[in-house]
Amino acid sequence: MVCKLKYSVIACFAVLAVASAMTPWLQASERSDSAVAEKPNIVIVFADDMGYGDLRCFGHPTIDTPNLDRMASEGQKWTNFYVAAPICTPSRAALMTGRLPIRSGMCSNRRGVLFPDSAGGLPGNEVTLAEALKTVGYATACVGKWHLGHLPRYLPTSNGFDSYFGIPYSNDMDRKLGTPYQETCKTGGIEMFDVPLMRDEKIIERPAQQTTITKRYTEEACRVIRENQDRPFFLYLAHSMPHVPLFRSPEFEGKSARGLYGDVIEEIDWSVGQVLDTLRETGLAKRTLVLFTSDNGPWLVFDLHGGSAGLLRDGKGSTFEGGMREPAILWWPGMIKPGVVTEIGSTLDVLATACEIAGAKVPSDRIMDSVDLSPVLFGTGPSPRDTMFYYRSRQLFAIRQGAFKAHFRTKATVGDRKEYEHDPPLLYNLEHDPSEKYDIAVKHPDVIAGIMKLRREHESKMIEGEDQLAPRIPPSK
Amino acid sequence: MVCKLKYSVIACFAVLAVASAMTPWLQASERSDSAVAEKPNIVIVFADDMGYGDLRCFGHPTIDTPNLDRMASEGQKWTNFYVAAPICTPSRAALMTGRLPIRSGMCSNRRGVLFPDSAGGLPGNEVTLAEALKTVGYATACVGKWHLGHLPRYLPTSNGFDSYFGIPYSNDMDRKLGTPYQETCKTGGIEMFDVPLMRDEKIIERPAQQTTITKRYTEEACRVIRENQDRPFFLYLAHSMPHVPLFRSPEFEGKSARGLYGDVIEEIDWSVGQVLDTLRETGLAKRTLVLFTSDNGPWLVFDLHGGSAGLLRDGKGSTFEGGMREPAILWWPGMIKPGVVTEIGSTLDVLATACEIAGAKVPSDRIMDSVDLSPVLFGTGPSPRDTMFYYRSRQLFAIRQGAFKAHFRTKATVGDRKEYEHDPPLLYNLEHDPSEKYDIAVKHPDVIAGIMKLRREHESKMIEGEDQLAPRIPPSK
Repeated sequence: MVCKLKYSVIACFAVLAVASAMTPWLQASERSDSAVAEKPNIVIVFADDMGYGDLRCFGHPTIDTPNLDRMASEGQKWTNFYVAAPICTPSRAALMTGRLPIRSGMCSNRRGVLFPDSAGGLPGNEVTLAEALKTVGYATACVGKWHLGHLPRYLPTSNGFDSYFGIPYSNDMDRKLGTPYQETCKTGGIEMFDVPLMRDEKIIERPAQQTTITKRYTEEACRVIRENQDRPFFLYLAHSMPHVPLFRSPEFEGKSARGLYGDVIEEIDWSVGQVLDTLRETGLAKRTLVLFTSDNGPWLVFDLHGGSAGLLRDGKGSTFEGGMREPAILWWPGMIKPGVVTEIGSTLDVLATACEIAGAKVPSDRIMDSVDLSPVLFGTGPSPRDTMFYYRSRQLFAIRQGAFKAHFRTKATVGDRKEYEHDPPLLYNLEHDPSEKYDIAVKHPDVIAGIMKLRREHESKMIEGEDQLAPRIPPSK
Repeated sequence: MVCKLKYSVIACFAVLAVASAMTPWLQASERSDSAVAEKPNIVIVFADDMGYGDLRCFGHPTIDTPNLDRMASEGQKWTNFYVAAPICTPSRAALMTGRLPIRSGMCSNRRGVLFPDSAGGLPGNEVTLAEALKTVGYATACVGKWHLGHLPRYLPTSNGFDSYFGIPYSNDMDRKLGTPYQETCKTGGIEMFDVPLMRDEKIIERPAQQTTITKRYTEEACRVIRENQDRPFFLYLAHSMPHVPLFRSPEFEGKSARGLYGDVIEEIDWSVGQVLDTLRETGLAKRTLVLFTSDNGPWLVFDLHGGSAGLLRDGKGSTFEGGMREPAILWWPGMIKPGVVTEIGSTLDVLATACEIAGAKVPSDRIMDSVDLSPVLFGTGPSPRDTMFYYRSRQLFAIRQGAFKAHFRTKATVGDRKEYEHDPPLLYNLEHDPSEKYDIAVKHPDVIAGIMKLRREHESKMIEGEDQLAPRIPPSK
């Protein structure tokens, strides 16, 4: 309901606006059924807290990921691909909206993410990728972790998805009262986390049987593919794993040399294999774009229950590269130019890219942070993205412009965890120094000046959304 | 001369010894010319100070290594492959002899490596891989950095190689008097390093024109391949790069997004491409085993002039993994089972493996540390190597047994560089924890006890070779 109402408002804007030559709003809605049928499917497989270094094709020595490695060799492996926040809720808001979470209010200085007692969620006036694709005839399904609000008006089915099956927030929540957090996340059974599993708006299982959650998400995703062979679909498969507490199906117990965490990643790799195999078997592979990436870096404080950022510095929660640069693989046999892409891309860009290839309209009534990466996919041009803004909560901590990254503030999650302000900023050349080891600020005052100018421009135009993460549901009387 | 004499002694031993069922000494020497012609060629491409994380197929985000990536996808990428010392001279002695450097005396507590004023080198009674292969009819050529002694009796041509072309020791040596070491290595031109380039036993250029050294080594290597199409050959191509000072050919200036260091690695990648292309063009690819690896980890104190160990801890000079685990790729189209190998292998094993496939005899009159990895290459069995001994100079710092590594002593090269003794040892599970972050000694007293037993056995049988690195050439009067 909410989505239809808000969409009609946007549609009015669009009709009044000068139509874009490439993706005119009216043209999309006037297309014939056969044109709709030819639109490519969009599949996003999103891992949770997986590190830059956790896949074999990104250098892990003992985690075995043959399906993702094959996906990378058939498609594009992106080595400079970013999420828009180093933690879950804001990162997912950015993926769904193509906007920095500060704009939608999906980040907070008071609470990092949404919790089971949160009253907020993705504001109804935000346009999700699912909503954008629905306007051009897509079936839409969300499977897995949502984490953009669990009250009915915030659920996937209120945000453009025809169906939802998953745990609506993090799998470490609804913890049994009085249990120690870290220890329970490492050693507790599924009964220690009373998280709900939902089908659309209904809770169908509680606590969710997390041991088989990756497998069941996968089965649901493959079912969605099989049942939508006659129309274009958008499938968002957001795994709850490898976020702590770690669980995997019995078939994956002890499979990986990397131990429990490796078992979990190898089950996700299996899941990707199932999805791609289903696309091949149904003959849909050549008209389906698949993206695999993760919401943020590895949760290092969980030691071996967390992943590895490889050669990148720090992890989840940090605006160093390990927190926000993710392994990313794009796949579309026969359409994507296979290879390794070292240009900059972001989950922010998924919306504009998917809209471009689906012939859908990118919202034009608001500031967007999404650029169309399809020229890189098809080998026809460079990435239009040259900058990344690194927010921690509601503060701008760093900016990347080309090869250079300036940190105005830093706060590590391992070692010295104090927050520092840097004036002049720390400056790294990420192409030379991906591990952010060698501050070169004194050598490049011109680069600093350019980034400071960009910062002023960015901040002067920023319209901050109201904090959606802080409000709590009042305790029942 | 020296090599022939010493070999006849060994031959006597071999004739008297009970012949191995697999590689009997006499059988090898009695083989017909056609059998000799069918023996596979052996090519080793050895980089200098390249890190575990410096190749794209091992996860580097900006260094472009298409030739090595292709080599890995056609062959085997080994993720647990070790050198036997974290610095140059002892590591190379181990590769050439299949023995821990402590046995040959090619390590010292007084000097890390051989220097231009060193009087020593690889003892004449050591059997090099070149010598072993010569006994079964191989042509042998050494191209590049030798670093096992530069006096005539220690040169490649005295150690089983038919020819030599290269800089006999490190390219940062013979430095202009009075220049500061680190700064000169980073910014000095080739004239600052008066290192000789040799053809066999003669100096043909001084200072060596290092700018084109990788290119000229490559041309020489390809010439060796083309000129030996009618008989089996062993080519040892040991690049002087990416050891500091870094130089690359004009064609590679500014090529890499990673900067100078990346240019250098990309030229080495080009070199590998030239070697493999030459093998393909001459029709020799299907009967040539090629190994690519490096002598030790990245020299981290040289900041961006050094490489990256990826997710591994520390680098050159350290017995943490970053110092001794190397990217390794084995290639032999149609013979090697392509894939990723996570079992343990070592440069120590090159001798036994090469001898096995060449039908040559592994010396049986001495303790060898070399095991035959051919079952892993051909997919017929597991690696016989389950242990690694990590020596720093002449001290045993650590032992890996299976997944576990116990550090008795540690000395990092970055951060806190003090030397520590650990009793009980630090214990890491390298399969779970490749970055050596989480000491689990208290959980596994049984594992520690097993490794301590192994240590006692190893040390009780150790016959240490006399220090070959300490003696200096007396100053001329």
